[in-house]
Amino acid sequence: MAFYGPRLVVPIDVKKKPWEQKLPLHNRWHPDIPPVAEVAAGEVFRVEMVDFSGGGITKEYTAEDIKHSNPSIVHYLSGPIRISDTDGIPAQPGDLLVVDICNLGPLPGDEWGFTATFDRENGGGFLTDHFPSATKAIWYFEGIYAYSPHIPGVRFPGLTHPGIVGTAPSMELLKIWNERERELEENGLKTMKLCEVLHQRPLANLPSTKGCVLGGIKEGTPEWEKIAMEAARTIPGRENGGNCDIKNLSRGSKVYLPVFVEGANLSTGDMHFSQGDGEIAFCGAIEMSGFLELKCEIIRGGMKEYLTPMGPTPLHVNPIFEIGPVEPRFSEWLVFEGISVDESGKQHYLDATVAYKRAVLNAIDYLYKFGYSKEQSYLLLSCCPCEGRISGIVDSPNAVATLAIPTAIFDQDIRPKANKVPVGPRIVRKPDVLKCTYDGNLPTTRNPSSAT
Amino acid sequence: MAFYGPRLVVPIDVKKKPWEQKLPLHNRWHPDIPPVAEVAAGEVFRVEMVDFSGGGITKEYTAEDIKHSNPSIVHYLSGPIRISDTDGIPAQPGDLLVVDICNLGPLPGDEWGFTATFDRENGGGFLTDHFPSATKAIWYFEGIYAYSPHIPGVRFPGLTHPGIVGTAPSMELLKIWNERERELEENGLKTMKLCEVLHQRPLANLPSTKGCVLGGIKEGTPEWEKIAMEAARTIPGRENGGNCDIKNLSRGSKVYLPVFVEGANLSTGDMHFSQGDGEIAFCGAIEMSGFLELKCEIIRGGMKEYLTPMGPTPLHVNPIFEIGPVEPRFSEWLVFEGISVDESGKQHYLDATVAYKRAVLNAIDYLYKFGYSKEQSYLLLSCCPCEGRISGIVDSPNAVATLAIPTAIFDQDIRPKANKVPVGPRIVRKPDVLKCTYDGNLPTTRNPSSAT
Amino acid sequence: MAFYGPRLVVPIDVKKKPWEQKLPLHNRWHPDIPPVAEVAAGEVFRVEMVDFSGGGITKEYTAEDIKHSNPSIVHYLSGPIRISDTDGIPAQPGDLLVVDICNLGPLPGDEWGFTATFDRENGGGFLTDHFPSATKAIWYFEGIYAYSPHIPGVRFPGLTHPGIVGTAPSMELLKIWNERERELEENGLKTMKLCEVLHQRPLANLPSTKGCVLGGIKEGTPEWEKIAMEAARTIPGRENGGNCDIKNLSRGSKVYLPVFVEGANLSTGDMHFSQGDGEIAFCGAIEMSGFLELKCEIIRGGMKEYLTPMGPTPLHVNPIFEIGPVEPRFSEWLVFEGISVDESGKQHYLDATVAYKRAVLNAIDYLYKFGYSKEQSYLLLSCCPCEGRISGIVDSPNAVATLAIPTAIFDQDIRPKANKVPVGPRIVRKPDVLKCTYDGNLPTTRNPSSAT
Amino acid sequence: MAFYGPRLVVPIDVKKKPWEQKLPLHNRWHPDIPPVAEVAAGEVFRVEMVDFSGGGITKEYTAEDIKHSNPSIVHYLSGPIRISDTDGIPAQPGDLLVVDICNLGPLPGDEWGFTATFDRENGGGFLTDHFPSATKAIWYFEGIYAYSPHIPGVRFPGLTHPGIVGTAPSMELLKIWNERERELEENGLKTMKLCEVLHQRPLANLPSTKGCVLGGIKEGTPEWEKIAMEAARTIPGRENGGNCDIKNLSRGSKVYLPVFVEGANLSTGDMHFSQGDGEIAFCGAIEMSGFLELKCEIIRGGMKEYLTPMGPTPLHVNPIFEIGPVEPRFSEWLVFEGISVDESGKQHYLDATVAYKRAVLNAIDYLYKFGYSKEQSYLLLSCCPCEGRISGIVDSPNAVATLAIPTAIFDQDIRPKANKVPVGPRIVRKPDVLKCTYDGNLPTTRNPSSAT
Repeated sequence: MAFYGPRLVVPIDVKKKPWEQKLPLHNRWHPDIPPVAEVAAGEVFRVEMVDFSGGGITKEYTAEDIKHSNPSIVHYLSGPIRISDTDGIPAQPGDLLVVDICNLGPLPGDEWGFTATFDRENGGGFLTDHFPSATKAIWYFEGIYAYSPHIPGVRFPGLTHPGIVGTAPSMELLKIWNERERELEENGLKTMKLCEVLHQRPLANLPSTKGCVLGGIKEGTPEWEKIAMEAARTIPGRENGGNCDIKNLSRGSKVYLPVFVEGANLSTGDMHFSQGDGEIAFCGAIEMSGFLELKCEIIRGGMKEYLTPMGPTPLHVNPIFEIGPVEPRFSEWLVFEGISVDESGKQHYLDATVAYKRAVLNAIDYLYKFGYSKEQSYLLLSCCPCEGRISGIVDSPNAVATLAIPTAIFDQDIRPKANKVPVGPRIVRKPDVLKCTYDGNLPTTRNPSSAT
Repeated sequence: MAFYGPRLVVPIDVKKKPWEQKLPLHNRWHPDIPPVAEVAAGEVFRVEMVDFSGGGITKEYTAEDIKHSNPSIVHYLSGPIRISDTDGIPAQPGDLLVVDICNLGPLPGDEWGFTATFDRENGGGFLTDHFPSATKAIWYFEGIYAYSPHIPGVRFPGLTHPGIVGTAPSMELLKIWNERERELEENGLKTMKLCEVLHQRPLANLPSTKGCVLGGIKEGTPEWEKIAMEAARTIPGRENGGNCDIKNLSRGSKVYLPVFVEGANLSTGDMHFSQGDGEIAFCGAIEMSGFLELKCEIIRGGMKEYLTPMGPTPLHVNPIFEIGPVEPRFSEWLVFEGISVDESGKQHYLDATVAYKRAVLNAIDYLYKFGYSKEQSYLLLSCCPCEGRISGIVDSPNAVATLAIPTAIFDQDIRPKANKVPVGPRIVRKPDVLKCTYDGNLPTTRNPSSAT
Repeated sequence: MAFYGPRLVVPIDVKKKPWEQKLPLHNRWHPDIPPVAEVAAGEVFRVEMVDFSGGGITKEYTAEDIKHSNPSIVHYLSGPIRISDTDGIPAQPGDLLVVDICNLGPLPGDEWGFTATFDRENGGGFLTDHFPSATKAIWYFEGIYAYSPHIPGVRFPGLTHPGIVGTAPSMELLKIWNERERELEENGLKTMKLCEVLHQRPLANLPSTKGCVLGGIKEGTPEWEKIAMEAARTIPGRENGGNCDIKNLSRGSKVYLPVFVEGANLSTGDMHFSQGDGEIAFCGAIEMSGFLELKCEIIRGGMKEYLTPMGPTPLHVNPIFEIGPVEPRFSEWLVFEGISVDESGKQHYLDATVAYKRAVLNAIDYLYKFGYSKEQSYLLLSCCPCEGRISGIVDSPNAVATLAIPTAIFDQDIRPKANKVPVGPRIVRKPDVLKCTYDGNLPTTRNPSSAT
Repeated sequence: MAFYGPRLVVPIDVKKKPWEQKLPLHNRWHPDIPPVAEVAAGEVFRVEMVDFSGGGITKEYTAEDIKHSNPSIVHYLSGPIRISDTDGIPAQPGDLLVVDICNLGPLPGDEWGFTATFDRENGGGFLTDHFPSATKAIWYFEGIYAYSPHIPGVRFPGLTHPGIVGTAPSMELLKIWNERERELEENGLKTMKLCEVLHQRPLANLPSTKGCVLGGIKEGTPEWEKIAMEAARTIPGRENGGNCDIKNLSRGSKVYLPVFVEGANLSTGDMHFSQGDGEIAFCGAIEMSGFLELKCEIIRGGMKEYLTPMGPTPLHVNPIFEIGPVEPRFSEWLVFEGISVDESGKQHYLDATVAYKRAVLNAIDYLYKFGYSKEQSYLLLSCCPCEGRISGIVDSPNAVATLAIPTAIFDQDIRPKANKVPVGPRIVRKPDVLKCTYDGNLPTTRNPSSAT
């Protein structure tokens, strides 16, 4: 009998806990996590996924769940999926796995999401020195549009995408990761050049048994213990793709992933209804459960052919992405600039991270004049379709970064006007984001020039 | 008699040297450089400009002029122009100057440009540790399109824009600039957190009499000597706008500039036929002479109303920009990713500069497979309409930066293909860029994994 | 308990016949067809629909089903749906019904469609005098993309939309329709000014009991007999919206429909995965079953407020549409022009229909040079995202119509090239469309200048 | 000596009359009008042009010049230009001439334009039965933007293009034109199927000595008399391109024109700062003087290779156009629909001209609710970047045409709103267009349902 439509290879029941799903999930990268499904090249298949927190962050109107969330369990991923060609020969190390994103979206009946910042003691975010408290906003979806009761006056079409698409690392690659990240964690503060304004956040998240979920590997067994101590956390993007958070990776896009283990062992998760470049709030996209409809091809020997190792080994590669023709078109953008001079007035040297932080801070303070609380803007700029650009990276000593916001997402004209000067927050946007107190004792960065 | 069309307030004769122009040019920021023209709000006026080098870089097919160029003279600017309202009252400190970019382009009869990298001992560029030699490519224009005999097989529409639009700083602001940059130059290497892979480039360019041009201030006078020792170099973008290199700032865009001195004293220059985000080659846009047709409005008290000081004083602001609806539309993009792990394999902490460097290196090595020399791609990615994005800035320890290249600019399909693998540079693009030897003795960064 | 996601108000089981569905369908417009569901303003709800033929056209690789299809049964619609405000007060005649298209797509598990031309004796199409045979192509979907084994070498993203969205007419409006269409059918050939090249197609389709399906009205009852003789066919678009075939009416769009009966009685159907402007093949979009997720608002008294009656009565209105920001972006288009001179060389007077026919014929003959059969191109231009424009409508005696085709949908460069002249169909695209013989005896229009 | 920039081959002095220009102009199509310049393939050259009326329509704030304008003199064209290949061999009949539009714009110092409707007795426009009076609006340009004191509250970027680009016809083609147009003029009203609502406008404009300008052919000579009686008027678009009024034909576009005479004899004129699809007001774009920077290529034998004769002879061809990637992007459109039922309620058969007329009338009445006079909207929809689409052309008996207006061109939100109903023209836009009385005695079409 003919079949039309993608085969469901990883089902999710959103009413169940991550550990109760029909096929086991995982939240670490390791070559020994066994595949839960197998697909052939050319076949369109469907993968369903829980949200990154596996339901830990709820649709309740409170930020307590964020404040006390467990950082050790992120991100719950679906897979791994073993990919073979049409002759049944699996993808081999050195191949390139082409992943077509045919379709994607929220899971039917679960059309909502959240954007949040962690408490500074619990992971923080890009601006955690300014905004140390846990905050949360709930978003509802109407087809392609999202709106939030916690950030009124804003509505935008989502450029939905998976935050995480990655293949399993080989043991050799895993070792490289663990070593370089351990080196950073152990010696970074003393010896490396860090973006100092960020240095109070965790430097790296090394392997740990805490919260570790390893798919088909049974917890507590010696195998589990061993793998858990080796398996990489899913937080940073790395050579295998992973948490790359490229917001334009939507319907019709392609990902070219390196293959490090037989079968490629593709995992996906961390679905985002929408995200701004940078995902600044950290838990910062509109996070949701969702589905992907994918089609894979294998380019034999494609790593050598197309990827460009840049580092000590041929494994030091990065995936390539292809963005498709379907995106929201915006005609007008308001652009905020930042240079690599920090809030204390200190000059940094071509530091794009500092420059982008400054651009974001400028935008947040600007929107405050139009009635948005700073926390609202922080979450909004983290999840709306704004663009973060490296505009100038050569004009010593200032890197120039820009944040471009499409003006159409607001229900008011946010452009400066000669004859229509806003005097303070005239249109107060209520209610505000959900918010907890910050109980830590790290000092909050103050903008010396701001009255608010 | 009625007049239709913009009034020419700063004329340029491209056959003459910078110091022979009818109205004097300047290449420093200082409040005491006297205005050369005055315009009223609402009036459309035309400013013509030499290229940033004032003809120092020529249309000859050689890179010797780049290798031996004089970095002390950049950038030759037109202006300052004093702006008043329709009642004749000049812009005041604290106002916001709205600059509409009505039209722009190359100067008629001078439709060509160049892209270049300086020698590492003479300013270098973003990848100067990899590419220490001076190189140059000449571009010719056919209306909106540019092509280069030195980078064959590529043609793209220019998103033409001014590299520099800025107002004069006040003495107070100038002092802030000079102090923070001097601090960096004096103590940076020892005490500050630098992007170390870049640290062999000049840390800052402090005021100096060498090459200094101060408009109507006569060289050699005591006044000139005093101002030259105070006046800021034009290389970095700063609070007054200046060299912000925002590539989308084309026809129909607006710039909202802070006013620090009476009359605003607007200066413009460094016209770019096209530029990629980051302008990585440093002399990296398609540099040209050109014209701007501008219209100004004054928002009285607009600095306080709309700008967001972020730093010790109310002067620590950044301009705002508004991007218009007319731009080249590209439907397909190939995207290269970089993470904050450098070429030696070392892990950096959320460093977007390192991540962007890595993304650019990945793209250059990739294009090499399609027949472009690495120097060709370095220049191309510096000046074509590619987008440099900060995709992830929160997932410790890796910043993720991406470089998106519109595939339509190439005359071949540069996407990976399962059945059409390029084996080495199959279509060698000749001739190559113009190139000099590197005679310095700084070590060149090698990619340990690259055979080439 | 909170609910997230649209409520399913009209379910479809694609394995069942149209008359076996849980809620009855209908294929006529009449105020007395009873609503099958009721929704409140502001609620997001889901409507599922069979394809326009209710499964009459199958996924088999044959065109016999098209040749012998029953034109009296089109189009099977879902609904009517009664719309009330949040206080339970139904929409009233004179209101405006705002229909937000939140989401849409093929039905899961039924991701395929077809494009076809009817036999000339059975409905024909825009070019039926040239192409009298029934033809069919099957399309498969991969997420947003469609491809057909019968038109190889082409792949494009669908701009999915409902062909039909309409409200029920009042008896008064129905009478206007029936009278004017009867007048055309009875006297048109003799007295009216017709587009003569099209005149062998049916002039109008008047109410008829044959094939009539009236939802909850039981067939054979006296009520059914009466209504069937009054109820308008769904083929043409009219004042109530209906078969407007506006191809950009996709996710994020809005329709402002006039309300003629209490409750509005909204019906939808004729889902199109993709369509070209004009839908020239008649059965000409990529026809499919599908779903709509809609949200309605009622603008009380909105017909008078916003619609513009243009004719003898206030009922002579047309809906208004709002197109959203999400569409495939294409950067390059090849444009074919037609003027109002027909294939025999005869001059017509500002006739946009003749001009568009000519533009389409030009495009079909052009693509023939690139290996596509004329029947392939006829179907392709009917369903791909091409734009049909009225470019000039005032320059007597020639109307100028244009057909713009996005070049990116082809896997070859179809632009004219100086050094790469195609000599006849070099790349023959096989297999061809599915095709039947034409057994009628109407003369086929020949292009006197064409060798093929 | 190297030259950078296009060579000026046809200069215009806008202070002079058409007959005083350095190179003679022409306003007819004829093979014997001698070339005024010659260019080689690959060369970028500049052509300057008077506005279509040669200054007959002035920048004065009166519509008297329109009312009494001389229709026999349109359109003043620059050229013909003889095109040869780089070996000096001219283009030959049967070749295809590729014309790259490298750049274009208004003439410096002449940055203004006008949109107008002729008096019904003097040429009328698409809606002349509704709007019989001569009207005019003056537009001023600020770079890419146009605004008019006569249509306040509207500002839009121009998609500037030449209304006319064409090659000279051969005598054989000229004869075909004259015969078919004479047939229409002589017998059309009696025997042909006309769009009857338009039939009071001139059916065709046959050759006439009145107002005839033939370039280098001296007026009054026997040669001039002969040619004047044969030479085709430039009003309609025909096989040679000519007045095709394709609004997207801007910077970066290409035209593929058939060559009928040796050297191609390219002529251009009728520059439009902006135009809506259809150019409904007839004198309906923003008409201006201007310049084109062009580059030509010759595809030898390209007519047979690429064009598709559709008619009795191989000369029955139409040009092909290629639209480039640079256009204003608009994200939101309001779309008005028309069906082929006319204002009297009469049903027409698949008549796209009637449907488009209805869509335009709907839009005009709609905008009236927002404070624009109907004459303002008539001119506005003729010259702003609106899109006129043939949406449905097969659903008997109704053709469906749509008019899509980008909402961003207005300074108010013109979308229907549930809670913000405009009660009549609340914001009256003053002043109105310039207007004359209509002194003819043809009846004006009234909309029976309109109160205004």
